[in-house]
Amino acid sequence: MNIDRALLIPALKNIATRLRIDSVRATTASASGHPTSCMSMADLTAALFFAEMRFDPKDPKNPQSDRFVLSKGHAAPILYSAWAEAGAFDRAELMKLRQIGSDLEGHPTPRLNFVDVATGSLGQGICAAIGTALNARRIASDYRTYVLLGDGESAEGSVWEAANVAALDKLDNLCGITDVNALGQSRPTMWQHDMGQFERRWKAFGWHAIVIDGHDLTQILDAFAEARSTKGQPTMILARTLKGKGVSFVEGKDGWHGKPFKEGDELNRAIAELEKQFVTDTGPLVDLAAQIPKPASTPLTAVTPKPLAAPAYALGDQVATREAFGTALAKLADSDPRVVALDADVKNSTFSDRFEKVAPERFYQNFIAEQVMVGAAMGLAARGAIPFPSTFACFLTRAADFIRMAAISNVGVKLTGSHAGVSIGEDGPSQMALEDLAMYRAEPNYTVLYPCDAVSAERLLALMAYHPGPAYMRTSRPKTPVIYANDETFTIGGLKVLRESAADVATVIGAGITVFEALKAYEQLKAAETAIRVIDLYSLQPIDKAGLVAAGRATGGRLITVEDHYAAGGIGDAVAEAVADAGFTVHRLAVREIPRSGKPEELVERFGISANHIVDAVKKTK
Amino acid sequence: MNIDRALLIPALKNIATRLRIDSVRATTASASGHPTSCMSMADLTAALFFAEMRFDPKDPKNPQSDRFVLSKGHAAPILYSAWAEAGAFDRAELMKLRQIGSDLEGHPTPRLNFVDVATGSLGQGICAAIGTALNARRIASDYRTYVLLGDGESAEGSVWEAANVAALDKLDNLCGITDVNALGQSRPTMWQHDMGQFERRWKAFGWHAIVIDGHDLTQILDAFAEARSTKGQPTMILARTLKGKGVSFVEGKDGWHGKPFKEGDELNRAIAELEKQFVTDTGPLVDLAAQIPKPASTPLTAVTPKPLAAPAYALGDQVATREAFGTALAKLADSDPRVVALDADVKNSTFSDRFEKVAPERFYQNFIAEQVMVGAAMGLAARGAIPFPSTFACFLTRAADFIRMAAISNVGVKLTGSHAGVSIGEDGPSQMALEDLAMYRAEPNYTVLYPCDAVSAERLLALMAYHPGPAYMRTSRPKTPVIYANDETFTIGGLKVLRESAADVATVIGAGITVFEALKAYEQLKAAETAIRVIDLYSLQPIDKAGLVAAGRATGGRLITVEDHYAAGGIGDAVAEAVADAGFTVHRLAVREIPRSGKPEELVERFGISANHIVDAVKKTK
Repeated sequence: MNIDRALLIPALKNIATRLRIDSVRATTASASGHPTSCMSMADLTAALFFAEMRFDPKDPKNPQSDRFVLSKGHAAPILYSAWAEAGAFDRAELMKLRQIGSDLEGHPTPRLNFVDVATGSLGQGICAAIGTALNARRIASDYRTYVLLGDGESAEGSVWEAANVAALDKLDNLCGITDVNALGQSRPTMWQHDMGQFERRWKAFGWHAIVIDGHDLTQILDAFAEARSTKGQPTMILARTLKGKGVSFVEGKDGWHGKPFKEGDELNRAIAELEKQFVTDTGPLVDLAAQIPKPASTPLTAVTPKPLAAPAYALGDQVATREAFGTALAKLADSDPRVVALDADVKNSTFSDRFEKVAPERFYQNFIAEQVMVGAAMGLAARGAIPFPSTFACFLTRAADFIRMAAISNVGVKLTGSHAGVSIGEDGPSQMALEDLAMYRAEPNYTVLYPCDAVSAERLLALMAYHPGPAYMRTSRPKTPVIYANDETFTIGGLKVLRESAADVATVIGAGITVFEALKAYEQLKAAETAIRVIDLYSLQPIDKAGLVAAGRATGGRLITVEDHYAAGGIGDAVAEAVADAGFTVHRLAVREIPRSGKPEELVERFGISANHIVDAVKKTK
Repeated sequence: MNIDRALLIPALKNIATRLRIDSVRATTASASGHPTSCMSMADLTAALFFAEMRFDPKDPKNPQSDRFVLSKGHAAPILYSAWAEAGAFDRAELMKLRQIGSDLEGHPTPRLNFVDVATGSLGQGICAAIGTALNARRIASDYRTYVLLGDGESAEGSVWEAANVAALDKLDNLCGITDVNALGQSRPTMWQHDMGQFERRWKAFGWHAIVIDGHDLTQILDAFAEARSTKGQPTMILARTLKGKGVSFVEGKDGWHGKPFKEGDELNRAIAELEKQFVTDTGPLVDLAAQIPKPASTPLTAVTPKPLAAPAYALGDQVATREAFGTALAKLADSDPRVVALDADVKNSTFSDRFEKVAPERFYQNFIAEQVMVGAAMGLAARGAIPFPSTFACFLTRAADFIRMAAISNVGVKLTGSHAGVSIGEDGPSQMALEDLAMYRAEPNYTVLYPCDAVSAERLLALMAYHPGPAYMRTSRPKTPVIYANDETFTIGGLKVLRESAADVATVIGAGITVFEALKAYEQLKAAETAIRVIDLYSLQPIDKAGLVAAGRATGGRLITVEDHYAAGGIGDAVAEAVADAGFTVHRLAVREIPRSGKPEELVERFGISANHIVDAVKKTK
């Protein structure tokens, strides 16, 4: 921005004052929210939006627009005020903050077109910012990503996962700002105003760190310029600020977190103090909003996905679904440049290393740090990539809160968890995911898929890639036979009836490895002249309610589910709710105690989900 | 230990060689496991167990025994070998590694009396170690805690949460050891053998850091001594090691993670190389196992809990269950010195600050770091404390993987999550827990409680404190009227029938705030001359199956659940499974889309869980 500092700084000061006033008024109007958390970052925000970032207030989603992630999401009012000041929407809207009819929610969500990912769970925004920064590299754009954190937030481990990854990836297009206002929710923060604590940490983690007075606009502008010219490493601007800055009776005072000013005298005194801070003695000020630099308009490479070849398996091939996932992911990598993969140092177990071989430049290694892996995927998805983060299914629980926020963000993260269930065997319970289906099914907008063979794994992966919204696919460690032809079709929300006859006495519903236990049970029962229907429920969410009800009707309402998962929240519960309106109940076979090490087949037997247990259950329900 | 180094070191060398041989043999016998990850830490382990720690191999649970946590749990075989070498059990047992009949599982679990918490999900052991170190302070014992991490593991954010907390708490009774073998599972680690990367980070986080050669016993012993004499801060020993140390064809080589030596030539060559490393030229060696220093036997203060006073509310008082939790927790603090509380800078919202006022020395502030909060609670619980970690229910999902490992550990962490559901209102979805019940219910050994009023909150908290195993209590933000008398009794696994008559047409089952929606619906329907049964399902797991079935029988099998939670994994699913055998299905009212900001009552209405929706559901099922 080519405006003389002597003109620029008074204009920014007045914007900062307006942002403070807006934040105070809006939170008082909604009788809730965090005005003092906004006030500490007002000068930083004014400088960032009106003297640093390149964006188009009328087109926030422009693919080459600089990004801003408000990691301390509770300061949402000032974010909204900044966009209103920039001209994105009418300032009067700000007074509808937190109302049910307004998209200006208590914490930012992508209902607003200028928000990439929902924030409000601390320590996540910086992970998402890594994703938007990686995306710039992917599309060869020079857009920059800015992320503003709170100092209290810096205690979250995910912040340090992000710090490592950003440094390793040399993300010099990423600039962090920490608003060190020294006061947390319930007490002073961990390091308060000891700026050296922050500086030592960020430098040790490989960042360029700049300590400034976060209320001195000259220092702020200089720091942004220094960040822009720093190459080969990300920059963290550590800004010493005062919470509640600008209103004497709250400034730097504990006990004001999340407290709006009371309507009447308290509000009036605050506003009066703030209004006095307008610079009026320098004549007419420049209209900075009108001069925001537009994003680059250099043409980007057009995306033209190549057709995806059909699976190439032979019936009866023994292939683990985790391996089929790797093969399918590599094919997707070759087909579509938007597809990226993220790993947490298990690529040789999940088989995501096959993607890396095809497209190493779109394979992001996070080392053993699942939170930043999923968080970065959120940022990538928000910017048009199709990200596939994967690790052992049990270790994705490490990122459960990110998975939750991805649901609120409704971004297309395509998660895959391998090594599900007791069927992994000897490694023992710490490596067995037995609660993952419950975790993803709980989120109403997640697609949840669970293939049993290589063909369905490959087909479902491709469906998942292009289905909008977040999704999860569960893969298994043991090899299983290919049972579907390469041209078999699958749908999200479908199921496959694998065995059926008019004489079926019960329907057994499995998924993944239990499909094969059900098929074994079918053979055992057939030998005893009992027929059962067998269903492969490869899509758990959405679920084929009609198909399940039809099977229930055809088999006397006798429905048995069997799953390599704990009893709550998995296949049994999914089927039970789907058939409840039809008046059917479900008999559930599931893992009902903490398992232990052993051979896969021993554990499947011991924990009640083997063919033998299915046969017993059929006999009992008959 | 007063043994001359000239005698000590050869004896330790031979122990290290035996530990390597055991690890190699046991993993080959089980045809799975991580021998090379054991071999890098063999010298460290030998020195720690046989020249540093004070413990009784026959009484590992001694309250004053030094603790060892193997944070890199995949190196379990060498842990087992060290205990066998110390005389805890017969060395022949080692060859049963990972068999279904052996407690020597693939990763350590507390089925073994020398394991405090299960490890195998990386980055958790160091958090638990903070708990065991805090416990030493609680019981005024001088026992020390040692925790061994992998270098790959150091990428986990939870490690840095732990680093902060240990430094802030000045835990000089805690000594970490990082086995920097430079090789991860799938590739070289983030920082490989750049020891400065580790040293800078740990020093920046306030630890005393010592870089050593992890195969030089003199340096190892000196480092332990230096750690012991370092006051006011924890120590991290950063040991440069070689993965697979001792066997030339794997030592320092990538591609050997998690690969046992093949039976036959490969194993034989490895063992032959290792056996050559026995020191035989120094004459008879000292028997170090016989000389392990015993733990202190200074008497500890006896624990004599005082009786807990009954709740002191008046019927109709308006009290949020989160506030009642705080009051109850403060009473527990006063009553029982084993009770401790852990916070993540939300004590003024969860009301755990009431505990802090009563027992500040047993109140552990973790700042905004939920993983270390829950991890430390695991360590505390394993050593006899009764820990109550609490924060917003949604932010406990940040520690989902710890909650999972606490289930495997079966330790008595007593979690409480506040601000559940859409009824929190304006703050919006990022602050609303709507999947927490699914998360805890999935774990088969968690107790899950959900009080609706202050009396039940206080009673359930006391029950939870003394019920064995992990537990979760869900509290709400809005004030609700006290409906139970102070002398009302509650049981884990119970429910309360609040309204019933012979004319009831349906049973409505709620918990927490929906109990009051059900009571409102009762009144509305009563005005229309329709009677319903109303149940407060305050115990979700275990669940009162008989009580629910009886209600179903009495009301024509018409069961309606209503919950401030997503549809999957919560109250509806819990009730549906409980009544399935009786042939009843359940009509579920739950939140079925991502919610938004608004007033609590607006959201309860909009997302389908209000009295109006219950009335409609009753009318439809009639």
